[in-house]
Amino acid sequence: MPATELDQIVNLAKRRGFVFPSAEIYGGFRSTYDYGPLGSLMLRNVKNEWLRAMVQQRDDVVLIDAAILGPPAVWEASGHLKNFSDPLVDCTNCKQRFREDKLDDPHTCPHCGAKDSFTAARQFNLMFKTQAGPVADAGADAYLRPETAQGMFINFANVLQSSRKRPPFGIAQVGKSFRNEITPQNWIFRTREFEQMELQFFVPPAESAKWYQYWLDERMRWYTDLGIPASLLRLREHGADELSHYSAGTSDVEFAFPWGFDELEGIAQRTDFDLKAHAAASGEKLDYFDQASGERYVPYVVEPAAGATRTMAAFLLAAYDEDEVNGEPRTVLRLHPRLSPYQVAVLPLSKKDTLTPTAHEVRRRLSDRYMVDYDETQAIGRRYRRQDEIGTPLCVTVDFDSLDDRAVTIRDRDTTEQQRVAIDEVVTAVAERLGF
Amino acid sequence: MPATELDQIVNLAKRRGFVFPSAEIYGGFRSTYDYGPLGSLMLRNVKNEWLRAMVQQRDDVVLIDAAILGPPAVWEASGHLKNFSDPLVDCTNCKQRFREDKLDDPHTCPHCGAKDSFTAARQFNLMFKTQAGPVADAGADAYLRPETAQGMFINFANVLQSSRKRPPFGIAQVGKSFRNEITPQNWIFRTREFEQMELQFFVPPAESAKWYQYWLDERMRWYTDLGIPASLLRLREHGADELSHYSAGTSDVEFAFPWGFDELEGIAQRTDFDLKAHAAASGEKLDYFDQASGERYVPYVVEPAAGATRTMAAFLLAAYDEDEVNGEPRTVLRLHPRLSPYQVAVLPLSKKDTLTPTAHEVRRRLSDRYMVDYDETQAIGRRYRRQDEIGTPLCVTVDFDSLDDRAVTIRDRDTTEQQRVAIDEVVTAVAERLGF
Repeated sequence: MPATELDQIVNLAKRRGFVFPSAEIYGGFRSTYDYGPLGSLMLRNVKNEWLRAMVQQRDDVVLIDAAILGPPAVWEASGHLKNFSDPLVDCTNCKQRFREDKLDDPHTCPHCGAKDSFTAARQFNLMFKTQAGPVADAGADAYLRPETAQGMFINFANVLQSSRKRPPFGIAQVGKSFRNEITPQNWIFRTREFEQMELQFFVPPAESAKWYQYWLDERMRWYTDLGIPASLLRLREHGADELSHYSAGTSDVEFAFPWGFDELEGIAQRTDFDLKAHAAASGEKLDYFDQASGERYVPYVVEPAAGATRTMAAFLLAAYDEDEVNGEPRTVLRLHPRLSPYQVAVLPLSKKDTLTPTAHEVRRRLSDRYMVDYDETQAIGRRYRRQDEIGTPLCVTVDFDSLDDRAVTIRDRDTTEQQRVAIDEVVTAVAERLGF
Repeated sequence: MPATELDQIVNLAKRRGFVFPSAEIYGGFRSTYDYGPLGSLMLRNVKNEWLRAMVQQRDDVVLIDAAILGPPAVWEASGHLKNFSDPLVDCTNCKQRFREDKLDDPHTCPHCGAKDSFTAARQFNLMFKTQAGPVADAGADAYLRPETAQGMFINFANVLQSSRKRPPFGIAQVGKSFRNEITPQNWIFRTREFEQMELQFFVPPAESAKWYQYWLDERMRWYTDLGIPASLLRLREHGADELSHYSAGTSDVEFAFPWGFDELEGIAQRTDFDLKAHAAASGEKLDYFDQASGERYVPYVVEPAAGATRTMAAFLLAAYDEDEVNGEPRTVLRLHPRLSPYQVAVLPLSKKDTLTPTAHEVRRRLSDRYMVDYDETQAIGRRYRRQDEIGTPLCVTVDFDSLDDRAVTIRDRDTTEQQRVAIDEVVTAVAERLGF
C-alpha cells in the first residue's frame, strides 16, 4: 500500500541517499534540495523515460536544450514580466510578508495577530533576476527562466528550418527552471529550483482540440505504464479563474499526495499566444507555410508540462510498501525497473577474497547495460532488505558454489523467489526478467 | 581531416540544428547558446558517455545532482567569494571596461586609444548573484554555482553515510554552472552559462599522487576512446602562477582548437582544502574513520573536471571531414556512434504511401533501442549527404523490393558501402555494426 504520510518517504529518502536538504551543513537553504546517489539516478531515469516516450519513440518530436539565462525581451513578450506574480502584503506591525490570496483572514495578521495592519497588496514577480556582464547597467539584466517553454517558442523558426518538421510536430525540453515562490512546501513538490519536462506540440489551429485530448490520454498512460495505479491519478480541468494568462483551457494530471490530490503536470492549450507575442515583439516571422495547401498560418500549441522532481516524489510515494518476508517486516519500494536507481545488485555472499574476482566479473558483465550496485558488507539478509528498500528489482548473489558451477542466484524483489542461472547467461536472464 | 576554421563547424551547427545563438530573434544574448534538435541529442550523449565511464562501469563512484542556487556561506568557505575574481580596469576616456591581465598594452586603451587612461584595477567577482525569497535582505542572497564541485564537498557526510563507500571513492556530478566571464569567446568554448562533468575522488592522503596519475591516464583515454586522435590532445601541467587557490597541482587536457591548444578538462589535486574549509566553517565533521586501521583522516581529493559543452565542440571539430563520393564532394562528421545525434536514419526510398507502413515498422523496431531519424523528403542521394553531414553512422533504406523480400539496405557513413539485411534482423545487424 502506498505511503500515506510524506515523512515515510522523506525519512527513507534522506537515510538511503535519495534526497538531502541542500547545504544542510549550513542549516539548509530555503527549501532547496540535493539529489543523492540514489535520487540522482532515479531522477535521471524519470527524465530518460519521459524522453524515451516523448522523443525517442516518436517521429514527430525533436528535443532542444535552451539556456536558463535570458534577456528581459523574452519575458516581456511572453507576458511573464507583467503577469507572473503573486500579490504580497506586509504587516505594518510585525513587518512579516504574506501572499494576500493565501490569507485565511484578510484583516488579521497570522503572525502577530494585529488587526487591519496590512499594506495594500503589491505584485511580486516570481522570476529570479541577475546581471550578466561586467557593467551593471540595464542591458545586463537577465532572468532565470521560470519555465522551459519560452525556449521552444523563441527557437521555433530555427528548429523548423533545420529539422524540416511540419505541424503537427513538437519541440521537447527537459531542464531546470526557477520560481521565487513565496511559500515553497511539501518537500520536493514545490521548490524554488526545480526541473521540468515540457513539450510544445505545434498543430494546425483547427486540430487543437483533437490534440489536446490526444495528449491528455497519452500523458495519463505514461504515469500508469510506469506503475502509478490509476486510482491514485485524476485529470482535473481548470476553472476559468485559474487559467494562466496564455491558456484557452488546461487540465492537470493530479496525484493523490498525502496532503490531497495535487498537480504533477499541466496540459494546456496555449493557442497561438506565444508565437504571436514573440513575432510581434521581435519582428520575426514565426509561422508555417504549408506548401501543399498554399496556406500560411501560426500554429496552435498544446503543451504537456510536467514537473520532474514532483513526479519523482509521486513515483516514490506510490511505490512504497510494507509487507512480511519469512515472518519479518520489510519496507519495499515497488518501483518500475526502469525507474529504480539500480536495476540489479551484485552481492558476494561473503567478503572472502575467493569470491571477489567472480563477483566483479558478474558486476562488469551487467554494468555494461545496467546501473548496478555492488555491496559486500553485512549479512546477506540485511543486504536484501536494503535493496528492497531502495527498489532494486533483482539481486544477483555470488556464493561459494559459484566458483564450481559458474552459476549465480537471481532473487526477485517482489516475490523474493530465487533462481539459479549460469554466469554466461546472467545478462540475458536479467534482461528477460526486467523486460529490457 | 579535422576542421581548421571554427566557422566550418559554427555554420554547420547553425544550419543543421546543433547550436543556435540564444534568443536570436531578439538579437542574441551575451554569448549564450541554445542546443537545437541535433545538439541537444549530442550533448546528452557526451554527458551519458561520461557517466557510463565514470559512474556506471565503476563500483567506486556514486552520482549526485545538487542545487544550482546556494547560500553565501558555501562560497565564503570555499574561497570563491574572496578569490574567484578577475581584475578589471575602466578607461576614464571612453568608459569601456577591460580585464587588466588580458591587456596587450597596460598603458593604452585598446578601444579609444587613450594613453594611461585606466583606473586602478578592481576585483570583479565572477559569480552570478540573485535573491531567493520575498524579502530582499541579506539573508535572501544566493549565488548561482560557478562549479559543481562544492555540491560534492558539502554533501560529503550525507553521501558517506548513506552509500557506505570508503576512500578511495568518488562523487560525480553533471550539470550547469555559471560564471560571469568578462570576455566569453570562441562559440561554445567559453560561455557564461555552461555545463560541467566533475568527479571528486576522495583518497587517503598518501595515495593522492598515485590517483592523480591514474586519473590523468584514464581521462586521456576517454577522449581517444571516443574518437579524438591523440595527435590533437595534450596534457599540460599548470605553472605555480596559474594554480587555483585550492590546488597543489593541476594538469589540463588540451585540444588543438583552431585558435591553438586550449583546455577541455582540468585534473587537480585539491588536497583536503575544501573538506577542511567546510568543516571549519560549518562545525561539522567532514572526515573518514577507517575501522580497519583505527585511523581518522580528512581525505585528499583528486578532481577531473571537464566542460561538457567545450568537449562537444572538440568532438565536432575533430570529426569534421571533407571527401569525395562518386566524384562528388561531401562533408561528413566522423563522430563516434555513441556521440552522433542519431545512431541510425530510416529512409523510405520514396514518399509513396505503399512504403510508409514498412518504413515505420523499421523505425519503430530501431527506436526502442536507438535514437532514430526518419526522413522521407528529397532525393535519396541528398538525404544520404544530410545524414553524413550530421554524423549518422548508419542509414537504413526501405525500397520497393522491401515489400517483397522483407529486407532493407544498410549504408555505412564512412565507407558508403551498402548491405541488404532482413527486416527481422535489422536491430541485430545495426547493433553489430555500431558495436552496442
